[in-house]
Amino acid sequence: MRLGNRPIDDAFVRAFASDHRDIGSDRACFDLAALALYGDRLAFTTDSYVVDPIVFPGGDIGTLAVCGAINDLAADGATPLVLTCSLIIEDGLRVETVHTIATSIARAARAAGVRIATGDTTVVGRGACDKLFITTAGIGVIPAGTALDIGAVRPGDVLIVNGYLGDHGATILAARGDLAGDVPIESDCASLGDLIAELVRAVPRTRFIRNATTGGGVASVLNEIAVAAGVAIEIDEATLPIRVPVKGFCEILGLHPLYLANAGKIVAAVPPDQTEAALAALRAHPLGFDACAIGHVRAGAAGRVTMRTTFGGTRIVDMPACEHVPRIC
Amino acid sequence: MRLGNRPIDDAFVRAFASDHRDIGSDRACFDLAALALYGDRLAFTTDSYVVDPIVFPGGDIGTLAVCGAINDLAADGATPLVLTCSLIIEDGLRVETVHTIATSIARAARAAGVRIATGDTTVVGRGACDKLFITTAGIGVIPAGTALDIGAVRPGDVLIVNGYLGDHGATILAARGDLAGDVPIESDCASLGDLIAELVRAVPRTRFIRNATTGGGVASVLNEIAVAAGVAIEIDEATLPIRVPVKGFCEILGLHPLYLANAGKIVAAVPPDQTEAALAALRAHPLGFDACAIGHVRAGAAGRVTMRTTFGGTRIVDMPACEHVPRIC
Repeated sequence: MRLGNRPIDDAFVRAFASDHRDIGSDRACFDLAALALYGDRLAFTTDSYVVDPIVFPGGDIGTLAVCGAINDLAADGATPLVLTCSLIIEDGLRVETVHTIATSIARAARAAGVRIATGDTTVVGRGACDKLFITTAGIGVIPAGTALDIGAVRPGDVLIVNGYLGDHGATILAARGDLAGDVPIESDCASLGDLIAELVRAVPRTRFIRNATTGGGVASVLNEIAVAAGVAIEIDEATLPIRVPVKGFCEILGLHPLYLANAGKIVAAVPPDQTEAALAALRAHPLGFDACAIGHVRAGAAGRVTMRTTFGGTRIVDMPACEHVPRIC
Repeated sequence: MRLGNRPIDDAFVRAFASDHRDIGSDRACFDLAALALYGDRLAFTTDSYVVDPIVFPGGDIGTLAVCGAINDLAADGATPLVLTCSLIIEDGLRVETVHTIATSIARAARAAGVRIATGDTTVVGRGACDKLFITTAGIGVIPAGTALDIGAVRPGDVLIVNGYLGDHGATILAARGDLAGDVPIESDCASLGDLIAELVRAVPRTRFIRNATTGGGVASVLNEIAVAAGVAIEIDEATLPIRVPVKGFCEILGLHPLYLANAGKIVAAVPPDQTEAALAALRAHPLGFDACAIGHVRAGAAGRVTMRTTFGGTRIVDMPACEHVPRIC
């Protein structure tokens, strides 16, 4: 952690105090032999979080940044082990807010058994950034034999999600607009490390898992799979798990929940004969209680994602041309 | 790399195309066995770069972010291997500028033999960030037997820098103000991986190395060493390598070059009998040609850094209370 602002640095030192020793440094060091106990390959990931507002029902930007890195690693089949956190903070942001975020980062990491190795706080002048941005990077280790590969997805595979879609995106939009308080939803922000480990243990033939924490929501993940695996995907709108208030909120705004961001949801592709085993494994975990199959992979036009609508028609689920809504995660 | 803005993503895909295959993903994967060929410990570092202006004489924010991560790893004694880059980009920033930065990132990484494993671009609305911020994270591997430790610094050790101080800070300040064009200096932005490897090879008993790319300059590094090692440090102003225009520029602004940021400088502590060997190793490298000893470690008031001035007096070199000048790196 660089020399930045004394009260801000203190907030982080306090929040992380119990986790590690070298908080004053922006580097950290681990025995490769200790890492090798977890598997044979290192996974390395990064993402920036710019969500607005920075505190929202169900979480805050700190929880989101930690869970996002963990979920990216876990979806690769890795055991998440260590994160770094870099914060860019607008001068004048209340120290209490920074303390809240720092506490959330520490709590989310501790709950997931992941270490925040090191961090960096950079304060910029008023107006040079909007409140606070966080970039997390993470390393994890993939157990030998785990082979999740987007290219392994093939016709017949079933696509599964671990619960309700769009909660995070709808929560952020509601918190920003005039509807705040009227929409009884909160972000699904959660660390999915354990859930994903359970799924892979129960269904070693799981083809591929993707963390659906993107601005483009599940629609974007499905398109990515269809393009990369050279397959078509068909989903069934009637099976999509969408909470009633999220559905209503989306109708008002003219958005489909498939395009809303999630913060604790994955899409998994499993062989058809493993569908029940996968659903059972997910549903046995509190974060997968509402898991369900939403569609399947087909031969045919590579890269095309279609949805059978509740009205009996078929529509194309496009790749969002850009993030549907800015600063949702 | 997340789905963000098509022209921006294209700029990165083009710039990194030759470096790696999985540019469309925000994660990367490496064999632990391959990493173990480089040593026995993994180093993991992160930093955010918010320099303003983003393009300056001698480099740009992309070069700075890559070199900074490499130098942090190398100063730990690690062989820098892989970086991630997360960019937060203000909507409306010219695509040509993004392309320039992307090219700089790719070029700096390639020149240092380091792979950009994965990246992430996040576009925020106009006014939500000032142009472009970059957070790099890096992993490297520390060769077995390398033991650089701030706690190993002891009285008698000699403090060495690898060349002129303050060039980066003065360049950024000059580029921002009315003096632009009048000050014939440029940033010292450079990757020091090879230089540091040469130093450690020539002087295996090197106690400690710190990358001096911080807002607080060499003054901040010296204070950090004095506090962490529980020693006093005395430097000699007459020996400080400062370019004439940097000195003049600092006099105008009332700053001391010791407090100005560097972007390609280290401070190394070596045992006194290794001083000549260390200087010879550094001077044999183009980035250490102007290396010199600037002071030494003393017993006495732990944490105190003093400077014998060119006028024959002694002054205390305080830890800067905060970054001397904002957004210098």
